[in-house]
Amino acid sequence: MQKIKRSERIGAMIKILSDMPNRIYTLNHFSELFGAAKSTISEDIDIAHAVLEEFRLGSLETVTGAAGGVRYLPTPYPEAARRFVDEMCLRLSDPERILAGGYLYMLDELSHPVKVARMGEILAHWFRDTRPDFVVTVETKGIPVALMVARCLNVPMITARRDVRISEGSVVTINYVTGSAHKIQSMSLPKRAVVEGQRALIIDDFMKRGGTLRGVVDLMREFSVTVAGMGVVMTTAEPDRKLVDNCHALMVLHGVDETSRKVDVRPSRYVRGMEA
Amino acid sequence: MQKIKRSERIGAMIKILSDMPNRIYTLNHFSELFGAAKSTISEDIDIAHAVLEEFRLGSLETVTGAAGGVRYLPTPYPEAARRFVDEMCLRLSDPERILAGGYLYMLDELSHPVKVARMGEILAHWFRDTRPDFVVTVETKGIPVALMVARCLNVPMITARRDVRISEGSVVTINYVTGSAHKIQSMSLPKRAVVEGQRALIIDDFMKRGGTLRGVVDLMREFSVTVAGMGVVMTTAEPDRKLVDNCHALMVLHGVDETSRKVDVRPSRYVRGMEA
Repeated sequence: MQKIKRSERIGAMIKILSDMPNRIYTLNHFSELFGAAKSTISEDIDIAHAVLEEFRLGSLETVTGAAGGVRYLPTPYPEAARRFVDEMCLRLSDPERILAGGYLYMLDELSHPVKVARMGEILAHWFRDTRPDFVVTVETKGIPVALMVARCLNVPMITARRDVRISEGSVVTINYVTGSAHKIQSMSLPKRAVVEGQRALIIDDFMKRGGTLRGVVDLMREFSVTVAGMGVVMTTAEPDRKLVDNCHALMVLHGVDETSRKVDVRPSRYVRGMEA
Repeated sequence: MQKIKRSERIGAMIKILSDMPNRIYTLNHFSELFGAAKSTISEDIDIAHAVLEEFRLGSLETVTGAAGGVRYLPTPYPEAARRFVDEMCLRLSDPERILAGGYLYMLDELSHPVKVARMGEILAHWFRDTRPDFVVTVETKGIPVALMVARCLNVPMITARRDVRISEGSVVTINYVTGSAHKIQSMSLPKRAVVEGQRALIIDDFMKRGGTLRGVVDLMREFSVTVAGMGVVMTTAEPDRKLVDNCHALMVLHGVDETSRKVDVRPSRYVRGMEA
């Protein structure tokens, strides 16, 4: 094998690690791939980490112990995260987005791959220490963000569905009351999607009273799954008391006024509180 | 600014480019970011391209002209793509996946971030020259794959929905006949999600007769949108004649036998035919 230069090793290493956030690669893996000593790989990792930090592209973490190695962590930088959410609030404040009934059109934001990747990085960062085994969402609009959160945390994503489909086998179904419309709905999850005793991170696009999230919490209880955390893209300021506690949001919707055509949406305290 | 070494430039450059597949960055961008001459950046790009190719991690393409620069293309390598699809076929052939009615449980494959990213890379690669303006899918199971295809092609993803939600504004709705169950269903797309004259790449998880895909084609016609291509994760071998033509699949389901508990699923001719 031709000798691989440091610049080449670092380029390939950063690509391989960042393609699989949170997955631990052993030093041996890179040592064999590049035909280089482990001490050399160690130095490469230090340089790669420094360059990622310098250009605010995330970080590498060395994990010690038997299952040790190195992994890539997508680390949103506070000022960049705040700017990203600020800009999103600005776009969402466009009066053209106001729909009948005081709703806000945000489907484009919620399904653009680059934007949901950024949202996913921030949400995943907040829950990085909660050790979820999977991310769970409710169809449909929250799926892209939930998938990106799952990608950052290196866990599967699971979707609870409002209708039961034959192609998913036996399911567990619960009824819940939607917080906003006070309607009774049901949601289902295939039995084989989840293992008892696991930990779930609940991610959704929007929360008003929190009825749907409350439903997911109840559904998780049916599976004997612990809720590791809860996050949404947007929550409403009103009502102040939600049906679930401690749900982290990126943005807070303070009001949509159909008459004056004003939208008031702001970064949440979680975003504002990110350490500089 | 401290001088940035080649290894550092290449590491950062690969990360920045591969975070946004198919997005063109000017040489000036990197020249300013790194405080290096454009000729130096040009050399960096050549090295970065070579290392990505050597380790089968994709490729960089230099785009000339006024809007010129460099972009990252996620290029699935034929043998790696074939191995990936082979392994997926093997996992899906597990008799434990057989559901009542001859259905196959594949939800875990369709919502695992790493797996759908790989599927998305292959599907996007097949349609890289079709210049779609967006990727469209039908809720629910195809969303993760469609999002990853959209990510590779640097375009938005749009989801047609089976129920009409008030929070999406005015929608266009069509009725279609599902190919397998011969039921009449409807699907809707928000009016503001699409602009007349655009090009759509249709991506879905599963095709039997192609009734749903036919519905999406009709829906696109309502929007005066051209269909740039069609791809699914899995198609059935029977019926041989589908309601749509030229749909590219990753896998072909030749049969699910509930009695003998045998699943016959194979890589498609599109996968087998990928050039070595």
